[in-house]
Amino acid sequence: MTDTGVLLAITAHPGDFVWRAGGALALAASRNQRAVIACLSFGERGESASAWRAGKSLKEIKQQRQSEGERAAEILGAEVLFFDAGDYPLRETDELLQRLIDLYRELQPSFVLTHAKGDPYNMDHPKAAEIALHARVLAQAPGVVGPGEVIGAPPVFSFEPHQSEVSEFTPDVLLDITPVWDTKLAAMNSMSAQGHLVEYYSDLGRRRGVQAQRNSGPNLGLPTKTYAEAFHRIYPQVTTELN
Amino acid sequence: MTDTGVLLAITAHPGDFVWRAGGALALAASRNQRAVIACLSFGERGESASAWRAGKSLKEIKQQRQSEGERAAEILGAEVLFFDAGDYPLRETDELLQRLIDLYRELQPSFVLTHAKGDPYNMDHPKAAEIALHARVLAQAPGVVGPGEVIGAPPVFSFEPHQSEVSEFTPDVLLDITPVWDTKLAAMNSMSAQGHLVEYYSDLGRRRGVQAQRNSGPNLGLPTKTYAEAFHRIYPQVTTELN
Amino acid sequence: MTDTGVLLAITAHPGDFVWRAGGALALAASRNQRAVIACLSFGERGESASAWRAGKSLKEIKQQRQSEGERAAEILGAEVLFFDAGDYPLRETDELLQRLIDLYRELQPSFVLTHAKGDPYNMDHPKAAEIALHARVLAQAPGVVGPGEVIGAPPVFSFEPHQSEVSEFTPDVLLDITPVWDTKLAAMNSMSAQGHLVEYYSDLGRRRGVQAQRNSGPNLGLPTKTYAEAFHRIYPQVTTELN
Amino acid sequence: MTDTGVLLAITAHPGDFVWRAGGALALAASRNQRAVIACLSFGERGESASAWRAGKSLKEIKQQRQSEGERAAEILGAEVLFFDAGDYPLRETDELLQRLIDLYRELQPSFVLTHAKGDPYNMDHPKAAEIALHARVLAQAPGVVGPGEVIGAPPVFSFEPHQSEVSEFTPDVLLDITPVWDTKLAAMNSMSAQGHLVEYYSDLGRRRGVQAQRNSGPNLGLPTKTYAEAFHRIYPQVTTELN
Amino acid sequence: MTDTGVLLAITAHPGDFVWRAGGALALAASRNQRAVIACLSFGERGESASAWRAGKSLKEIKQQRQSEGERAAEILGAEVLFFDAGDYPLRETDELLQRLIDLYRELQPSFVLTHAKGDPYNMDHPKAAEIALHARVLAQAPGVVGPGEVIGAPPVFSFEPHQSEVSEFTPDVLLDITPVWDTKLAAMNSMSAQGHLVEYYSDLGRRRGVQAQRNSGPNLGLPTKTYAEAFHRIYPQVTTELN
Amino acid sequence: MTDTGVLLAITAHPGDFVWRAGGALALAASRNQRAVIACLSFGERGESASAWRAGKSLKEIKQQRQSEGERAAEILGAEVLFFDAGDYPLRETDELLQRLIDLYRELQPSFVLTHAKGDPYNMDHPKAAEIALHARVLAQAPGVVGPGEVIGAPPVFSFEPHQSEVSEFTPDVLLDITPVWDTKLAAMNSMSAQGHLVEYYSDLGRRRGVQAQRNSGPNLGLPTKTYAEAFHRIYPQVTTELN
Repeated sequence: MTDTGVLLAITAHPGDFVWRAGGALALAASRNQRAVIACLSFGERGESASAWRAGKSLKEIKQQRQSEGERAAEILGAEVLFFDAGDYPLRETDELLQRLIDLYRELQPSFVLTHAKGDPYNMDHPKAAEIALHARVLAQAPGVVGPGEVIGAPPVFSFEPHQSEVSEFTPDVLLDITPVWDTKLAAMNSMSAQGHLVEYYSDLGRRRGVQAQRNSGPNLGLPTKTYAEAFHRIYPQVTTELN
Repeated sequence: MTDTGVLLAITAHPGDFVWRAGGALALAASRNQRAVIACLSFGERGESASAWRAGKSLKEIKQQRQSEGERAAEILGAEVLFFDAGDYPLRETDELLQRLIDLYRELQPSFVLTHAKGDPYNMDHPKAAEIALHARVLAQAPGVVGPGEVIGAPPVFSFEPHQSEVSEFTPDVLLDITPVWDTKLAAMNSMSAQGHLVEYYSDLGRRRGVQAQRNSGPNLGLPTKTYAEAFHRIYPQVTTELN
Repeated sequence: MTDTGVLLAITAHPGDFVWRAGGALALAASRNQRAVIACLSFGERGESASAWRAGKSLKEIKQQRQSEGERAAEILGAEVLFFDAGDYPLRETDELLQRLIDLYRELQPSFVLTHAKGDPYNMDHPKAAEIALHARVLAQAPGVVGPGEVIGAPPVFSFEPHQSEVSEFTPDVLLDITPVWDTKLAAMNSMSAQGHLVEYYSDLGRRRGVQAQRNSGPNLGLPTKTYAEAFHRIYPQVTTELN
Repeated sequence: MTDTGVLLAITAHPGDFVWRAGGALALAASRNQRAVIACLSFGERGESASAWRAGKSLKEIKQQRQSEGERAAEILGAEVLFFDAGDYPLRETDELLQRLIDLYRELQPSFVLTHAKGDPYNMDHPKAAEIALHARVLAQAPGVVGPGEVIGAPPVFSFEPHQSEVSEFTPDVLLDITPVWDTKLAAMNSMSAQGHLVEYYSDLGRRRGVQAQRNSGPNLGLPTKTYAEAFHRIYPQVTTELN
Repeated sequence: MTDTGVLLAITAHPGDFVWRAGGALALAASRNQRAVIACLSFGERGESASAWRAGKSLKEIKQQRQSEGERAAEILGAEVLFFDAGDYPLRETDELLQRLIDLYRELQPSFVLTHAKGDPYNMDHPKAAEIALHARVLAQAPGVVGPGEVIGAPPVFSFEPHQSEVSEFTPDVLLDITPVWDTKLAAMNSMSAQGHLVEYYSDLGRRRGVQAQRNSGPNLGLPTKTYAEAFHRIYPQVTTELN
Repeated sequence: MTDTGVLLAITAHPGDFVWRAGGALALAASRNQRAVIACLSFGERGESASAWRAGKSLKEIKQQRQSEGERAAEILGAEVLFFDAGDYPLRETDELLQRLIDLYRELQPSFVLTHAKGDPYNMDHPKAAEIALHARVLAQAPGVVGPGEVIGAPPVFSFEPHQSEVSEFTPDVLLDITPVWDTKLAAMNSMSAQGHLVEYYSDLGRRRGVQAQRNSGPNLGLPTKTYAEAFHRIYPQVTTELN
């Protein structure tokens, strides 16, 4: 990931990009890489339990989640675009696909982050991944209408589901996010709707960090206390040297 | 893979490192990285059909395979060590393990290449991988006797079996070997015992190259005609940036 | 499974709950647990070959299958609700989802039974499972409209497909249904449209019974001739003691 | 495969039946078996990059792809029917299903060829397979409207995706297409829109041929230079003798 | 499977070839194909519970199992060779491997039957499969000592474990054994040591028969009541026509 | 798990039963169930890095690990037996198998705990599981020599490897260990050789606890702060009621 190029994250709900990819986004931003989040819904139904219990209206909840998402994105140094495509259930529509095709063509992303293919606890997550992958393939074809040039083949990384062990998620990339851990923590703390998850994802960050240390060769020189995020590659890594 | 550090390849037979990892070895050498091959047998029984048919003795065949292996390694720019542990079948013995532990400790490799875990056509291949992985874990433990310091956790890459599609081999790394393709080709042509495989592995190099182009993002700038080798990671990649 | 709480079975067609879950349903009923079947279609196209061959009309066939289903449910001691959502193919619609969400909220089931995720012989089966699982997740969210309280996380058990060996179905629960075998047999015999299946599923009940005996520890004391049904858990078992 | 009976191939785009099943189709034709291709779209958006770049209109492109497809089918000795259901994305509609049900009933195919279930590079391919399999199951049911008699259970063979190694495609049938290789090559050469694939699929034909030789028992007597196509069975093979 | 060529079955214990492959063996014999069973042990410890309970000596038990095995083989029309390599546990030794290499070379089998790779209920079964496959690969190499010519690549079929559903066994070949069912039944009935299995395997024969009918195309014309045995191919099928 | 019956844990090293199964052991003990640990080695080479670095002798290290293991077992309320079979690598020998067979026969365990089948970081762990499973099958056979009666079929639970996500470990049982968490914590704190793991496994206990809450139906009434251990069943659960 060089300083040029765009990192595009496509998520179902606002919380997803904070808990699961906040480190990768902050890391990109810290290196002056542009990071853009396409958030397909406000998580207004599936991710806003306390607001509903407090008697808020749908409109209020959407606004609250949008504000939260924008604040968290700002903390991470990323831009966030809300697609308001509805959640619980999120559906693939031709219109949503086209808007994502347009975004791919405009941004020409170097890397794509999205959900993993399985999550028995939340059907919006695999659906968002499916939509993200479909739009990416469509954006590659000259025969598909859309602005600008067709895109190449940016690598796609699935971020980790909430219960990866029972979601058939195998981490094959452990990204050291130690330099931006405080930033991710601040973004997590800004998510009032799901505050109980801060400890859960802090634990996860530490555990993945220990595993990153345990799996790293002698060259990386990871810090004593490492934090990491886990990802799974959808396509093979192409490289000019083993690493 | 920086210019420092050692690339260690552990293979069952001499041909294996040429057909399946010759590109990675030549690429390392071309960057002044030390490349060492631990060849556990001469392939004297399983990989020397024509010599047996020509009536050669076991001793002659071992010498012939050793010469071929040394010549091929030299072309690739690598060192080769023969362990003469016997093939067809190759067995894990305490003595062989100890010799490999010693080698790991002496070389302190930055990267390890070995066979994949499955190959229904040749049981020496998964056995060599098993031995290589066992010795690596043992070399990490202070309680295991051996020279020098314990090793860290060098990444391990499985190279591709002969019929990967029916050996449960999924490529997750495609290494661009275009700059050293001529070197690999020369090494392959030097293997008289298995000359019929040159076309087969040239085809494979081209196909993996096309796939590398098809899977690469806009940043790599692969050449028009790309050659590649496929690998599978045994452990997750640890990285400080997505790539 | 205590005597309180509701067992909810969601199936594509009337036959499914008889052949594949009749034992579990009868067992619940025999323990005074309420057992409710949500039957998404009448199996009017996919499961009524003989009626079509006899020249019955669609309306007649639906009525016949409804009668059969009700009679079988009565024998098992369960209630059956028909959703008339159409079969061959069964489709997920927002309306069907909402009706199931409402049912989950009203019943607050303690256990859920549905189809397995794969069945290359009948696409309605995995679709019904998908719908059942989607509705369950939606019924958990306060932001999703519906009557009564949101539900907790009732365990979900997939019952066995017709040809489990080629449907990627791995039994991980063998339920002893010996005490209610006669009831299941009576229910099966009441299904005139698919009478040829009685022997097939009697065989299966015996085989699963033998396997239950072979896999049970010394504490269960299974009868000499045991009948069993096989299930697969969608979510991990949560327990306060190993069992 | 006897001389009687129909081979039905259901593909998403015109190229698919040429590159991936051209040998099986030509082989059937060479034995006077009727071979029919149901081509669900013209590949007008996803498979016609050069035409779009040359500024052709959608109508022109469809006509061009239809002509190419018809010419290739003719070379192979097969009939091709275009369904014009649209590509990128191809969608399952009730109308498309019904047209395929009708075709199954009219043809009463002895064998069915279609795409594999996975292809992360082209979502039309698994979708076409899903549609083909759904229609096949529906065509078996007397309760589903359609012309003629219901069909039996013709075996289904998935042909090989473009990058089978990363598409979870395991070849379990290697079909010797040596007698018709020249025919397949001619059909491939007639596909001007995707001419760069001729070398890629010629390589693949050779590699699968080498593997066919390596996996064949002593009875087949394969020619010195064998060409083969790989397939995966969706359903178990039923046979009256091991082969 | 033509009338020429040898069918070689390699099993851990005498019962295995009766319960799991008796149909295939009898079918071969009925077509005048030579069928040879290499039975690696007498099943003296793991398969002779009632004899031990009756206080028989090891020698008596071996003799009894040998007699039973020979009688059953005779009924099936096959030859049986006992290797007396010991069971519970069966071990791979160089000597056992060599005897099997010799047998492969002498028989030049056209087809090989052996156990499946997994069986959590009996570790001798996967071990016998491993030994059979190792010996087959070794017998192919000119550098491995042994009588006669090296062998080709005879297809290998795993027969079905006792509890296939929890042994990761997927049937991909269903062999119609209806013409020899009475023979298999007679052989099963001759196995006094394990008489309780006759019903279990008769059930299985019927169930696999029903599945064979359900999966067969229109060309086979299976009888009304079909019996079948299930197998799994270790290597891809090589064929000159789809079937 | 009733108050009667024995829980038998078979582990490679002393730490294993503390970190990975300490909760299950303490829970059994708290219910007056006898808990016995068969610890196959002292972990003298693979699990005692700091002692080696401190210059201790092999004898001293074994004694230290034995003391630690006995203290930890005592805290948990369990008995520990050391087999001193050697570690790094642990090997299956006939003698070790026989000693375990004898133990199975003497204890007649109701439940068995052991390692999971995969662990790419420590080859002793899967080997210990293999040995434990082999001995269990052997102890079931009347033909295998040993004291007392043959055993039945006690369920086997794999406990969680150190990096379950990359060890193909899927949790299918989450055991609530909240009532004995303090006991497990005390046992962990008593392990001076691996003190850095206390935080790691406390994190894991919390995470599995959150997941237990998230996956439990309405009947369990888990406490606000739940701790859990994850297990994987080797054999299907046999039950007289769904739970």
